[in-house]
Amino acid sequence: AAHGARKMEGYGRFLALLASALLVGFVSVVLSLVWVFQYREGLSWDGSLGEFNWHPVLIITGFVFIQGIAIIVYRLPWTWKCSKLLMKFIHAGLNTIAMILAIVSMVAVFDFHNAKNIPNMYSLHSWIGLTAVIFYSLQLFLGFAVFLLPFAPAHLRVALMPIHVYSGLTIFATVIATALMGITEKLIFALKNPAYSASPPEATLVNCLGLLLVIFGSLILWMASRPHWKRPPAENAKILRPIGATAEGTEVESTMTNSSNTDKSDLRSNTEAARKQNIKFDEAGQRSTM
Amino acid sequence: AAHGARKMEGYGRFLALLASALLVGFVSVVLSLVWVFQYREGLSWDGSLGEFNWHPVLIITGFVFIQGIAIIVYRLPWTWKCSKLLMKFIHAGLNTIAMILAIVSMVAVFDFHNAKNIPNMYSLHSWIGLTAVIFYSLQLFLGFAVFLLPFAPAHLRVALMPIHVYSGLTIFATVIATALMGITEKLIFALKNPAYSASPPEATLVNCLGLLLVIFGSLILWMASRPHWKRPPAENAKILRPIGATAEGTEVESTMTNSSNTDKSDLRSNTEAARKQNIKFDEAGQRSTM
Repeated sequence: AAHGARKMEGYGRFLALLASALLVGFVSVVLSLVWVFQYREGLSWDGSLGEFNWHPVLIITGFVFIQGIAIIVYRLPWTWKCSKLLMKFIHAGLNTIAMILAIVSMVAVFDFHNAKNIPNMYSLHSWIGLTAVIFYSLQLFLGFAVFLLPFAPAHLRVALMPIHVYSGLTIFATVIATALMGITEKLIFALKNPAYSASPPEATLVNCLGLLLVIFGSLILWMASRPHWKRPPAENAKILRPIGATAEGTEVESTMTNSSNTDKSDLRSNTEAARKQNIKFDEAGQRSTM
Repeated sequence: AAHGARKMEGYGRFLALLASALLVGFVSVVLSLVWVFQYREGLSWDGSLGEFNWHPVLIITGFVFIQGIAIIVYRLPWTWKCSKLLMKFIHAGLNTIAMILAIVSMVAVFDFHNAKNIPNMYSLHSWIGLTAVIFYSLQLFLGFAVFLLPFAPAHLRVALMPIHVYSGLTIFATVIATALMGITEKLIFALKNPAYSASPPEATLVNCLGLLLVIFGSLILWMASRPHWKRPPAENAKILRPIGATAEGTEVESTMTNSSNTDKSDLRSNTEAARKQNIKFDEAGQRSTM
């Protein structure tokens, strides 16, 4: 752990943000449980409101919290000594769990709607939510086919990685927006006498849950988009770097980053020849997936 | 126009995306007007629902469409021959217009609520919306003080730029999420007999409007986060670059970018000395704001 940790720039700040994100995510899951057990009908699987309640709980647990962790799993410095292949499996695995929980949570709603003769798919929440699940499944399938299986050529991986990163972050943000719409719907429908507008304790609790989801999303997006917190490229690439140059900044698996990193990477590759070597070997580092 | 345009990588793709964003944004504004005039009470300023209706119209026009354009205004290649100072004024000016429209749209809601004795600030929509407006005002004020006024030292600008970019994009995404919550609230409250769940034409129209807002946001975020579409740094920096090197990649004013740009910027700064020169002059390029 210490090996990778020492190499990270702003390690303390990263740890503080990670701890905040984990805390905010964990508290969100707890609040969703408090909501359904303290104020609503608890959890069940019988076509009743107890079945509906799996929807917010599983979405917040899987589609927000676990997806968020899946996004930043490459950033954890103590995993930098693990093989890239292992980390890809963890990234894909967490996203698969998130997808399964999202699908089960949708089944709960459809089941509940059908049992109560409530129409399906009429709301903006349902339209955007279903779109997000479809894009998420596509993203997972394409990610698996291109970045995990050993068949895709390096140039395809390089070309698709910015799209993979952008799609991932955009879907994640859209999922949180959809959760906020869902909270809005549910509070309006469920709170009668006192109504939502009378701000009963349940409304305040769930509004706070919504705020926490936005904070969680903002923390994850910040951590994912800091260039100096990216996993350094594969070891075999480092061997060929000029002395004094570190491995960050030329990784094929990259995320959104900014010019301060660009400047640093200029420092790190002193000659054109070394740069070309490094890129070639970074790409070769992809072979660790075979 | 042609001078800047020729220099842009993937100019055709940029134009197509820009045209799509403008079209989607424009259609969103039109749909908001169709909504309030065709299906609702039109526009007025008398404490009635006609006053409330300014809220969605001004939010979609100002806080979504104009803010979106403000975000990508540095990306338009035909503005690259304009001074950076002029572009900063346009960026700040568009954001100021967006903020004024957002504030007027909030006044419309408070006015309407007070006239009808409806409580203010009880919903998650209002909590997150007000938070977004406060952060947006702060962002505008700090942006003005640090990047437009000539007093901030270059190292402060360099340190704050990644935060400015991240905050800007996060606030923009949050505003769209808030708009989606607002649409959800309004359709549930306004549609009775037939209800929202019966999918009357108004529900379909406004759901489509919500989808367009998500598409608009996604297009803006894609354009803003492509490193090769960034405005090149100031002219005086270019003079000192090695022959054949272009100016992209070391700009102080930067946005989220990715490693493909990092690789390119390595290509562009061939020597350490040239790189240091360039950075110094890029920072000096900031003096164009004085």
